Amino acid sequence: PGWEVMEVENQKRLQRTFKFRDFATALEFTNRIGQIAEAEGHHPMMITEWGKVTVAWWTHAIGGLHRNDFIMAAKTNQIYAQMSPGG
Amino acid sequence: PGWEVMEVENQKRLQRTFKFRDFATALEFTNRIGQIAEAEGHHPMMITEWGKVTVAWWTHAIGGLHRNDFIMAAKTNQIYAQMSPGG
Repeated sequence: PGWEVMEVENQKRLQRTFKFRDFATALEFTNRIGQIAEAEGHHPMMITEWGKVTVAWWTHAIGGLHRNDFIMAAKTNQIYAQMSPGG
Repeated sequence: PGWEVMEVENQKRLQRTFKFRDFATALEFTNRIGQIAEAEGHHPMMITEWGKVTVAWWTHAIGGLHRNDFIMAAKTNQIYAQMSPGG
């Protein structure tokens, strides 16, 4: 399952859940996404749990999705591919 | 507002949202909580966003709250107090 467009409080967001083998690897992914977020000045919501991280991108200023959110989603996929054995 | 008992999918959990001055500090808090989670072998759900982190503790094995969740919530408060200027 790839990215889904979710609607939360009337705002569309791109959301995807990524699986990992343990908590430490999930947290490492959270940090890598945090690094690109800081680099781009665009910040997601990230839910870190044992073995998975859910990432959501949207643009608060417009209350929905902007081109940049799709770019960040693609970058998120790339980082996951680098980290996952099957990627 | 301190910890609240939330019921999600029929499971009680302790949940609290902590505020921070920016994204980087929020992510630092997420990592510090991750460290105590790994040290104790008990893992929360953490929602990291710009300026805030929501932490939820519960015990999957019993589908609810155990004494250990309250201990972890107290430790989470301690870490927040160490990091926040007003703490």
